[in-house]
Amino acid sequence: MSELSFRDTPVPSDRDVVRQLALACGGFSPAEIEIAVELVEDRLARGLSASGYHFLFAQWAPGVPSLGYACYGPIALTAASWDLYWIAVAKPGQGRGIGRRLLAEVERRAAALGAASLHADTSGREAYARTRAFYAGAGYARAAELPDFYGPGDAKVVFVKRL
Amino acid sequence: MSELSFRDTPVPSDRDVVRQLALACGGFSPAEIEIAVELVEDRLARGLSASGYHFLFAQWAPGVPSLGYACYGPIALTAASWDLYWIAVAKPGQGRGIGRRLLAEVERRAAALGAASLHADTSGREAYARTRAFYAGAGYARAAELPDFYGPGDAKVVFVKRL
Repeated sequence: MSELSFRDTPVPSDRDVVRQLALACGGFSPAEIEIAVELVEDRLARGLSASGYHFLFAQWAPGVPSLGYACYGPIALTAASWDLYWIAVAKPGQGRGIGRRLLAEVERRAAALGAASLHADTSGREAYARTRAFYAGAGYARAAELPDFYGPGDAKVVFVKRL
Repeated sequence: MSELSFRDTPVPSDRDVVRQLALACGGFSPAEIEIAVELVEDRLARGLSASGYHFLFAQWAPGVPSLGYACYGPIALTAASWDLYWIAVAKPGQGRGIGRRLLAEVERRAAALGAASLHADTSGREAYARTRAFYAGAGYARAAELPDFYGPGDAKVVFVKRL
């Protein structure tokens, strides 16, 4: 399997990269995609330490378009719990292990920065069964479920991995 | 029991009011108190709709110092789930039903604005047993517990009430 190349410093054009990756991932609503872009903008405006938003873009080689990205960072008021705010792989790249390797690299980098655990929220709806299987397959435990959190019949499921 | 008076529009001096109430409540760390003050500042800078931070201050009569306050608002990307970000009653006012009545007024106002549920996070540590009993006594269900969330041996407990 080819090695992925990673880059971790967002530039202004990554607003569009993130929008396109989130769109091409499928399953994100327009409101969710706007929030994804806002996280890039906040990182660009305030920097890494004030925003707390770490980014990781994955591509087959340096300089070619990104296939997926993740946004993660420490959770305020916790000693060492980190949140995976976002992970998205564009449809053409799905099923090729890109998400799995991207997530593993996020875990490696977060742990190196002191993270003790990584938390990922997703939906309990049937449409997100593949997302839940992705986290379970990556060693995440289903730690909590809040019924009707996102909306009627749409639970929040919290996955946690000890790093 | 005397009736409480409520006011809901923060003014610049409420940065100090919130700091003093959070301090006098006991149980909040300096980092937590800074976050509490930041929420007031964000509300003052960006307004209600952009910040999403609703405030409610409780006092025995209009114009006298506040005994307690709450900060709450809609959770992004949810249809109607709201978060109780903060509730604090200064020690001299504790045990007099002020927190209970403040919380009931928050629930009434949030429901009137369309909230279907109110979520409150607290610690699973022994020192927070009284806080957990407060929520349980107010009709909140213990919906989730994330071990070691805040730190080793310091779980996050999520309380939820359907409104």
